Amino acid sequence: MSAVPPTPTKSPAVVLLSGGLDSATLLAVAKSEAFECHALTFDYGQRHRDELEAAEAVARQIGTASHTVFSLNLRNFGGSALTDDIDVPKDRDPQAMSHGIPITYVPARNLIFLSIASGYAETLGARDLFIGVNAIDYSGYPDCRPQFIRSFEQTARLATKAGVEGRGMKIHAPLIELSKAQIIQLGTRLGVDYTLTHSCYDPTPEGLACGRCDSCQLRAAGFRDARIADPTRYAPAAAAAIRLR
Amino acid sequence: MSAVPPTPTKSPAVVLLSGGLDSATLLAVAKSEAFECHALTFDYGQRHRDELEAAEAVARQIGTASHTVFSLNLRNFGGSALTDDIDVPKDRDPQAMSHGIPITYVPARNLIFLSIASGYAETLGARDLFIGVNAIDYSGYPDCRPQFIRSFEQTARLATKAGVEGRGMKIHAPLIELSKAQIIQLGTRLGVDYTLTHSCYDPTPEGLACGRCDSCQLRAAGFRDARIADPTRYAPAAAAAIRLR
Repeated sequence: MSAVPPTPTKSPAVVLLSGGLDSATLLAVAKSEAFECHALTFDYGQRHRDELEAAEAVARQIGTASHTVFSLNLRNFGGSALTDDIDVPKDRDPQAMSHGIPITYVPARNLIFLSIASGYAETLGARDLFIGVNAIDYSGYPDCRPQFIRSFEQTARLATKAGVEGRGMKIHAPLIELSKAQIIQLGTRLGVDYTLTHSCYDPTPEGLACGRCDSCQLRAAGFRDARIADPTRYAPAAAAAIRLR
Repeated sequence: MSAVPPTPTKSPAVVLLSGGLDSATLLAVAKSEAFECHALTFDYGQRHRDELEAAEAVARQIGTASHTVFSLNLRNFGGSALTDDIDVPKDRDPQAMSHGIPITYVPARNLIFLSIASGYAETLGARDLFIGVNAIDYSGYPDCRPQFIRSFEQTARLATKAGVEGRGMKIHAPLIELSKAQIIQLGTRLGVDYTLTHSCYDPTPEGLACGRCDSCQLRAAGFRDARIADPTRYAPAAAAAIRLR
């Protein structure tokens, strides 16, 4: 009899997948660490609906054990340019982006997303949860900071059956200390197809990126700094503006 | 000119209102502390839908500044007798209820509810959040313990704009150390009409309480211990069983 080595069982992990550049890279990282990836996308009433289609395309390209779209209508509450009829800021100075909390902040968004992901992880029997927060380029969002992630991990341990039974919950935030350029380099190495991802807060009806919101500006600068060709499909006016920078 | 004293401005507070006995008492407590109460009820796919109607009736009786029903489908995940097609346990020994985590536990439910409530509080400019958890009668649920509430308060402070700006978020859990009988006595003093509340995990199609699930048993024992007549409308078979206890 030939000895067939047993197939190593992969551990399940929940991966938060928005459809943006960061979360696509995150999914590729989780997969490269040999987790069985269960992608979780939130349809929270965001104005940039193209994100949801991007999430599906990314999940297909990278490959997941499952992909769940969870609906919760944060428009019920409002208070953010991403869910409300408030104008998305354009052409902001990159210096200004790193100070204060932008109007695109959705109150307690990552707290809400991680909480639902923890419940989902518990039903899957997963102890690992991946989130693509990034503290460097987005220091304006309080719920992207390392101290928030560590505190959440502790709270989730106290809130769940897994925690009571001593198994805990590990929150992986592998992008938290990386610059946008480093994230793009990492994802490119892992084979992420960034043409599928969506970052713009205010795309045209045809799904072209505005090139002028904070998210577009950070993304474009990331590709420039990484010395990797930017595959983003920009609106014609935006493309000219980006070349001028 | 006669000096008219200025009307004191009430602080807004978010009050989690399920429609059960505890949360009705909670709302009455928040109101007695002179908060402007914004009730928040979750439609999370619970099998006992009568809860939602009860929440509306309770909000009307006690009086709120607003009442929002927030939908999120935790049936997406399953894993609990309250959201899934799993039988609700009946006729359990009261001793057994205080050990282990019951199948009616909904993974991370209070973590999810408090997170969404924190986002809502932030959009309202509220710094106070009321939750009717109770650590004594329900020691089996990890997310009803005081250490979870304190940890969440810290996490919410780190997650939100209010926290970054030094205003923080206070989680009030005034029922946490009370017995069911003490809660009933408190609510009765504050004028709560318990006939409007709903506690049963598995009511009849007509909305009558089964009298046999953990929640019914705890409620019935609470009225007995408080020496207050139990106004619950029980299914005929249950009423006989309760008289025998």
